Amino acid sequence: MTARIFGIAPSTRLRPSPYFEATRAEGVTSFTVYNRMLMPTGYGDPEGEYWRLINGVALWDVACERQVELRGPDAGRLAQILAARDLGKCAQGQGRYVALCDHAGTLINDPILLKLADDRFWLSIADSNILLWARAIADERRLNVTVSEPDVSPMAVQGPKAEDVAAAVFGDWVRGLRRFQFRHAAVEGIPVVVARSGWSKQGGFEFYLMDGSKGSQLWSIVREAGRPWEIGPGNPNHCERVEGGLLSYGGDTDDATNPFEVRLGRYVDLDVPDEVIGIAALRRIHAEGPRRHQLGVVLDGAAPVEPGFTWANIRQGGRKVGDMTTCVWSFRLRRNIGFALVARACAAGEDVEVVMGGRAVSGRLVDLPFVR
Amino acid sequence: MTARIFGIAPSTRLRPSPYFEATRAEGVTSFTVYNRMLMPTGYGDPEGEYWRLINGVALWDVACERQVELRGPDAGRLAQILAARDLGKCAQGQGRYVALCDHAGTLINDPILLKLADDRFWLSIADSNILLWARAIADERRLNVTVSEPDVSPMAVQGPKAEDVAAAVFGDWVRGLRRFQFRHAAVEGIPVVVARSGWSKQGGFEFYLMDGSKGSQLWSIVREAGRPWEIGPGNPNHCERVEGGLLSYGGDTDDATNPFEVRLGRYVDLDVPDEVIGIAALRRIHAEGPRRHQLGVVLDGAAPVEPGFTWANIRQGGRKVGDMTTCVWSFRLRRNIGFALVARACAAGEDVEVVMGGRAVSGRLVDLPFVR
Repeated sequence: MTARIFGIAPSTRLRPSPYFEATRAEGVTSFTVYNRMLMPTGYGDPEGEYWRLINGVALWDVACERQVELRGPDAGRLAQILAARDLGKCAQGQGRYVALCDHAGTLINDPILLKLADDRFWLSIADSNILLWARAIADERRLNVTVSEPDVSPMAVQGPKAEDVAAAVFGDWVRGLRRFQFRHAAVEGIPVVVARSGWSKQGGFEFYLMDGSKGSQLWSIVREAGRPWEIGPGNPNHCERVEGGLLSYGGDTDDATNPFEVRLGRYVDLDVPDEVIGIAALRRIHAEGPRRHQLGVVLDGAAPVEPGFTWANIRQGGRKVGDMTTCVWSFRLRRNIGFALVARACAAGEDVEVVMGGRAVSGRLVDLPFVR
Repeated sequence: MTARIFGIAPSTRLRPSPYFEATRAEGVTSFTVYNRMLMPTGYGDPEGEYWRLINGVALWDVACERQVELRGPDAGRLAQILAARDLGKCAQGQGRYVALCDHAGTLINDPILLKLADDRFWLSIADSNILLWARAIADERRLNVTVSEPDVSPMAVQGPKAEDVAAAVFGDWVRGLRRFQFRHAAVEGIPVVVARSGWSKQGGFEFYLMDGSKGSQLWSIVREAGRPWEIGPGNPNHCERVEGGLLSYGGDTDDATNPFEVRLGRYVDLDVPDEVIGIAALRRIHAEGPRRHQLGVVLDGAAPVEPGFTWANIRQGGRKVGDMTTCVWSFRLRRNIGFALVARACAAGEDVEVVMGGRAVSGRLVDLPFVR
């Protein structure tokens, strides 16, 4: 196992993705761990991978976006109990971006919910254990529903040429899918759910592989079909997602973050039934106004920073007013940019200092996103 | 951030431990991710690190064993609801190894529970989100308890010389601590809980640092105090724990494993109150007998295998009878050994085949542990 060269000790506690061998063959150079699964985070050419996403099409292993399946007579009711967003009008074959909260209104995940049938839903989750959470709620409330993690592993094609690639693989009907709409399909007998979705602002599709033994085969099919558009490997792109204002649950949130603080208020419906978890707290927070909000921060200086593992203090007049929760060199803006989770009183246009590695760096708060 | 050389992409979604800088200075060469925190897994000399644990004393960063604190009038009741083991006789200052199960009796974590006071408990957890789980149960049952993750980060000293080192740091009173017993202490003003505990069979202590800003300082203090016993860096040791029969939750368990299948039956009390989660299912499983059980497997051949990320099929007479959930080269037995989660009908002494990398390797089932 040459995986050892990556510096992540092999262990059966972690899980390889069905695309593990395919990404190894592509020359993956680094990983992260997400939902206890290895996710590729780079192939050795950060800037090239970035421009491929902006100008062309990239192929991502995002199998770590695991599905939590709710199935049974009470599946729809459980979905609504878990998500503080009105799902009444969500049609079969349609997805919704939802905020999952705990009883205190604290954000615990921000999945895409897919309605496969009236009695079958998937939560395509960010990095926290919603399988455990959903089971706790279902069993405590004695709902008639089975909560499981099915053998479903998404890959994504993202970028302006992604639609052409998806059409080349599955047919021109994919061009008619609206945002978060999906359909069952198959290619060379491999069962897949095809959705217009993905964690970038460049547009694209996710292919939810429904047979984990076919990862390398599906990867090859998409790779071959994408050749005319010079498809290549990539991954959820730190730079692009910050430029585009996409939230990373667990990276940009802490153990006290509510949806209103991180621009997810528009996905919260306050008039959902009282049995929805956290709705009483969310109504109160909404009435009082959240204590923090999320802005962008542009740092002075033209030397790219390296990403770190920790938040950085943001100060005004020598006093801490919040945290920079992520920071990255923007290839389009040629500046270091980040997300600022700051006191409500702070506003775009104001000067701040960010304390990085013991040094104060000057910068300015701005509205998000950085790039439309 | 030279952390990039480790091949784990820095991200604020992951957390460095308070000992991160100290372990970097020690020359850590690989990490894993555990409870979304980086844990060192090696310092470049696997065999040397192993023998240091067996014959001397090793210093481990196990801050990723996060604490879930239950605090308030209903803390004791919640602890008992979560753990299918009678806690009635657990005294203040005493810890207990407990099996946490979901409503189906499936194992979801195997923490050490520490009783700090009648209204204050810590669950020192393995790798799953018990913070989320405990909050779900507490809030669904409207218990008067606060569930949080305090600023508490264990380090461990393990090995036959560990007691001498702990005594050199904190005083000879530590020698009087029994297994899982603990006491509040301080060194150079740093608040610590000292417990006789640790994930090895060589004996030792865990120091629960209660101020995350003092990680490097505490590391240095213990390092200096341990110099007469040639203390050096280490980590939860894959080889030693398999030899000693220690379970790795999430590595040796799957989404259907109950405590009886993995030798944790002696930590389950079937006469706990009915409100304990999973107890009805556990009584039923116990009455019927679990379908699988855990044995050891010794493989033929003297060429060390490399650990992998996946379970391996175990076959008898060409038919699958279970899984090898972990495998390691034993420095003491000079054989590849592993854990076997196999059908109840399989017994120690029987021959098996293990399918590794497409190849069938012959071996034999044995009782655990391999080394006493």
